[in-house]
Amino acid sequence: MSLASRPDIISFAGGMPGNELFPVEAIEELFRGLDTRSKRAAFQYGPTPGLPSLLESLGGFLERKGLPVKSNRLMITTGSQQALSILARAFVDPGDRVLTEYPCFIGAISAFRACGAEIIALPVDEEGIDIERLSEEVQRPDLAKFLYITPYFHNPAGMLYGTERKRQLIETLQGRDVPLIEDDAYGELWFSEEDRERLQPIKSIDPEGIDVCYIGSFSKILGPGLRLGWMLAPESIYEKCELIKQSADACSPSFSQVIADAFIRSGKIGPYIASVREEYKRRAACMSDALRRYLPDYVKWNEPRGGFYIWLTLPEGTDSAKILKLAIERGAVFVTGSTFDPDGTRNDTMRISYCNNTPEEINKGIPIIAAAIREICG
Amino acid sequence: MSLASRPDIISFAGGMPGNELFPVEAIEELFRGLDTRSKRAAFQYGPTPGLPSLLESLGGFLERKGLPVKSNRLMITTGSQQALSILARAFVDPGDRVLTEYPCFIGAISAFRACGAEIIALPVDEEGIDIERLSEEVQRPDLAKFLYITPYFHNPAGMLYGTERKRQLIETLQGRDVPLIEDDAYGELWFSEEDRERLQPIKSIDPEGIDVCYIGSFSKILGPGLRLGWMLAPESIYEKCELIKQSADACSPSFSQVIADAFIRSGKIGPYIASVREEYKRRAACMSDALRRYLPDYVKWNEPRGGFYIWLTLPEGTDSAKILKLAIERGAVFVTGSTFDPDGTRNDTMRISYCNNTPEEINKGIPIIAAAIREICG
Repeated sequence: MSLASRPDIISFAGGMPGNELFPVEAIEELFRGLDTRSKRAAFQYGPTPGLPSLLESLGGFLERKGLPVKSNRLMITTGSQQALSILARAFVDPGDRVLTEYPCFIGAISAFRACGAEIIALPVDEEGIDIERLSEEVQRPDLAKFLYITPYFHNPAGMLYGTERKRQLIETLQGRDVPLIEDDAYGELWFSEEDRERLQPIKSIDPEGIDVCYIGSFSKILGPGLRLGWMLAPESIYEKCELIKQSADACSPSFSQVIADAFIRSGKIGPYIASVREEYKRRAACMSDALRRYLPDYVKWNEPRGGFYIWLTLPEGTDSAKILKLAIERGAVFVTGSTFDPDGTRNDTMRISYCNNTPEEINKGIPIIAAAIREICG
Repeated sequence: MSLASRPDIISFAGGMPGNELFPVEAIEELFRGLDTRSKRAAFQYGPTPGLPSLLESLGGFLERKGLPVKSNRLMITTGSQQALSILARAFVDPGDRVLTEYPCFIGAISAFRACGAEIIALPVDEEGIDIERLSEEVQRPDLAKFLYITPYFHNPAGMLYGTERKRQLIETLQGRDVPLIEDDAYGELWFSEEDRERLQPIKSIDPEGIDVCYIGSFSKILGPGLRLGWMLAPESIYEKCELIKQSADACSPSFSQVIADAFIRSGKIGPYIASVREEYKRRAACMSDALRRYLPDYVKWNEPRGGFYIWLTLPEGTDSAKILKLAIERGAVFVTGSTFDPDGTRNDTMRISYCNNTPEEINKGIPIIAAAIREICG
């Protein structure tokens, strides 16, 4: 990522919130106001599943989203990346099949692959995963260990699952003994009230005959530097995970947990999320204006409805690495599609993010990328 | 650990620093004094191996201990527990042998076992590991993947390796292709200047023909709640570890890293360590006085020279679980020896810690334990 931090290069590559958006002052003030007991607890070991106070406040936060906290077990993890790593270590042995989407979040690819998984990536369209392919895969006798999806403002594909597609997905999985990992890192960052229904987690329906592990993160609603995520899972899955969590890092950072707990309990988290939502919406609108203005018609892309990303599909057979090379020479960087392909081959796609850029940067950087596309694709 | 936190029970069970010793005010003041850029960096993702500024300041701290930072690679980990977990995941496959001490730090047992290791525990005496047994083990054709030791104020055995024993250990390992994990979590907590020479890490000698992975932690010199440790390892070992670190939690908490970096750079870490050293020394002296006064002669134990622990050896065949049961009924708790036995069998030993107790608690709790020992052992 050294290119992404070069000041002369405009980076649309990262998935990092804008540094200027973090609630630095609010957190400092909250920490200052804590009693000595809580401050000291921030320096001390905590229980492996998480500080009781945060488990309670986060549990309330998730219940208000409709999640079945009481009938499942909640664990605080060192980022949602650790939730993925723990689930993989608990259940995936070398050679086991894991179903993902294509494209797929790179952190999930690395967590599954670190356990020797064979990753089967099923394509997504603008409504969600390919149900026909999914249906074939879950009927195979050698059961996949998981289906991993990021249905809400997908990383990198940007899209939001449709309600009907989710219904079909549930129907396809029911009784098939393939647990679902539902990754909801970006769901709070919606741009329109209209999408609220589509954002309802599958876990909140808690459909019979599917073990759903719901994972989430404070990274996009407070700050990734705290390294705090969570996993809400049925008891049977949770149990095996707690042992692995203990051997992995004993407990998640108490300092971060005390801060996150205070942020929820103070009520500041709601207005904060509302404010970053608006800001990302502005950035997304600016970027989609620029794309409309500069991109050739043959490039397909999703109008952003939330989250951080826009996914560009280039004419078949294009090698986006060539576009990247040109763009870097001229001062802009993005991520090539092959990064999100578990097979590392398909490269006629690219991800650009708007989460960390000013309108000036967007209006300067997108023309550079558009020109590079025209030069390579004609 | 719920017993350990019951207010009516005096706990000598934990390995947690005293809550009242944490440098809460100093850290709050340091954080307040940081510039906006550093504060924001605390909320943001950092590079997988650690924030560059902390790698630099911690590197200096370790160089002042004589460690060969420049000819090795340094990685910040989410507690030293994660360093163990990463090393195990990088190199240990199911059925592989790993050599440890008996008794052995429980976190190491769980990290190795999570990877399917067969743990061979070699006994320690008051000078260190049994060299004859070690020599046999490293000459076996099925090479062990690691030798793991905690030579400096051992957890749980309390003792400090002798200089001669370290020399023998080095000689025994040289050219044998069994990498050494040297765990130095407690080395800063010495009680006497005289022991400084014995505290010289093996890694600082960097003996030829041995790959030494030196691991350490901020847990005992700042606070375990930050979840920050480190690993200093040769390039060849480090490389494989970085990939696993990335899949495990992407990076260690930036918030904690910014704090630790400020603590080192401000120069406050030195006087702080000196002050907790004195405090633990007082607690240790109080506990050894009480043990001398109350324990029957047939109980063997180490005079504490640093760290957190005293290890009691009871008459052969004693079941310390029976002693624990009696002691709990009467209001004191410790950890039975079998906890630290990879085979989970030998139980004629027990660990008591003084790190988290007032003199009043020690003088009330030790007589309870001594009476329970007399009742069971006669």
